[in-house]
Amino acid sequence: MSASANVTGSISAPGFLAKYQALLQAALRASLASSAPTLGTMLRYHMGWETTDGVPTQASSGKGLRPALCLFTCEAVGGSPDEAMAAAVALELIHNFSLIHDDIQDLDLERHGRQTVWAVWGKPKALVAGNTMRTYADITLHQLQESGTTPESTLEVLRVLTECCLELIEGQFLDLTFESRLDVAPEEYLDMVSRKTGALIEAAMHLGAVLGGAETSQVNALARCGRLLGLAFQARDDVLGIWGDTEVLGKATGADIRRKKKSLPVVFALTKANKSQRKRLEALYIAPEELGDVAVEEVMGILDNLDAHGYAQSVAEEMEAKATTTAKEAELGPDASASLNELANFMVRRDH
Amino acid sequence: MSASANVTGSISAPGFLAKYQALLQAALRASLASSAPTLGTMLRYHMGWETTDGVPTQASSGKGLRPALCLFTCEAVGGSPDEAMAAAVALELIHNFSLIHDDIQDLDLERHGRQTVWAVWGKPKALVAGNTMRTYADITLHQLQESGTTPESTLEVLRVLTECCLELIEGQFLDLTFESRLDVAPEEYLDMVSRKTGALIEAAMHLGAVLGGAETSQVNALARCGRLLGLAFQARDDVLGIWGDTEVLGKATGADIRRKKKSLPVVFALTKANKSQRKRLEALYIAPEELGDVAVEEVMGILDNLDAHGYAQSVAEEMEAKATTTAKEAELGPDASASLNELANFMVRRDH
Repeated sequence: MSASANVTGSISAPGFLAKYQALLQAALRASLASSAPTLGTMLRYHMGWETTDGVPTQASSGKGLRPALCLFTCEAVGGSPDEAMAAAVALELIHNFSLIHDDIQDLDLERHGRQTVWAVWGKPKALVAGNTMRTYADITLHQLQESGTTPESTLEVLRVLTECCLELIEGQFLDLTFESRLDVAPEEYLDMVSRKTGALIEAAMHLGAVLGGAETSQVNALARCGRLLGLAFQARDDVLGIWGDTEVLGKATGADIRRKKKSLPVVFALTKANKSQRKRLEALYIAPEELGDVAVEEVMGILDNLDAHGYAQSVAEEMEAKATTTAKEAELGPDASASLNELANFMVRRDH
Repeated sequence: MSASANVTGSISAPGFLAKYQALLQAALRASLASSAPTLGTMLRYHMGWETTDGVPTQASSGKGLRPALCLFTCEAVGGSPDEAMAAAVALELIHNFSLIHDDIQDLDLERHGRQTVWAVWGKPKALVAGNTMRTYADITLHQLQESGTTPESTLEVLRVLTECCLELIEGQFLDLTFESRLDVAPEEYLDMVSRKTGALIEAAMHLGAVLGGAETSQVNALARCGRLLGLAFQARDDVLGIWGDTEVLGKATGADIRRKKKSLPVVFALTKANKSQRKRLEALYIAPEELGDVAVEEVMGILDNLDAHGYAQSVAEEMEAKATTTAKEAELGPDASASLNELANFMVRRDH
């Protein structure tokens, strides 16, 4: 693994992702349009479309990476993006179901610079809002048949997403169990991430390929590519959570250290630390409260000493390399291949 | 509506429900057998099969009403219960998903005389356990095809359960919004109950009928019958929650008054109270804490004065009468009709 953490300049999201956004946003809004009054406002608030009072707004929300990847994959194997739209919407809704519940679990007060759903409406209602978001994913998938998908393929899509949900939820559970542990090995951490983040990105490419009419071997290669991209994406996310630029991210450098998130660099450091470093890290991470400025500095010093940045970035790049190699087995056309490589490169070198 | 609240003697669950229990329990256990270590223990603990440490036990759990009703309906329309087993299991898992999340929302510490999942493992993990339970419902449904169900019918079953989940969740949401209100009309309350309890019992009969090969008109009549039975069941539950026998139920008489649950008798009383009664009820129900013995006595006195018991019981019996009338449209055989009437009678006259 070669660490190239220090040469990660600012790069922007591949332009091809943007081309799906207009249609996708319209389909996403339609999927939540019928939801009951207050509950619907909670969902649309979370998506960045409404204020807490239900007034239309356009707040910052997620990148829409999963649905765009699904539509891209569908087109890359020769399908029309329309055919995968219901699946793309469902993927984004499942992702957001998991975010709403994650925020309750982690007691996070903010997301994209706005209060989280539970912070506004309380935990009981936020829990219900998450469950509703997930249910709309299923409701949307039943529309696949309307766009001409056979019952067999519709069932296959539902099955893939159900299994993906199970992995995602198991990943969340593992993540929770890691909170009280200081002996998580990087391999264990990556297994957790593979479920919590990788499964849904795998499903995005898997379903895009299935609905685009790909051969089984192509479907399998693209699904595996998705899983690896998910791992690469998360490893880079972990790097940015500690060393990300405050201005770009809107959060302080060392943010994940402050809230004692046991992300990949920290898990690595706990494994590689010498006796005195380990003693300090354990003392700081066992205490229940957030870390103060001095403690954050101290932990960052230990991470730098162990080159945890270089390690985490090298994991991201290793996964990226594996993902692009795996994608070759799918024998996509030159344009699609170039786009996928551009996306993989963005995932591990982005600064936001 | 004729109130016959005072003649509800002790009657036991219809014997025909028991005949499905052995097969059902085996199928339920199989559905959760593969769940990951700790998470699996949480699910099996909730079902009453394991201790918190994962040691096998046989604790009291639910009545298994929904799955038994599904299997019964399948057989009543001429099908074999095997054909509906996956759906029956899914119904019970969805019911238990909603219970695990309900307990978190309501901060209930006990269920069936044991600590609730969140009380043992904390809210974040319990939230995940509920989500897992729901996902196993979906996973189980994908086994329908193995028992010979066509892709079209499997999709139909999944669609019915998805729509049922949405109603159930919306019902939970309405229930939460009622907590801060003292002006809920009985009609609003019954609409909430129709979703929160009625939808899943409707789905039980709907799916039993579909999987047993019933005609559309039969399916529709049985589905409507299920919804009405759900309303009858809940109205009787509300009666028992206040006036139920402590020994039989294992909870104190007036239990739902103590925790200020705005069940049907209370909602009715708030509507019918005279000025001074309303003033007292409002004062007691606005305060945040549980009610003490004296306050419980006072509220029970007001309920008795307004015959809230008689009202709630008469609603239960009205729904029972509508349910059995509706069931006639399904033109079941004499044995099945008699069993269904026996079940309906049990639902509104049971004392536990």
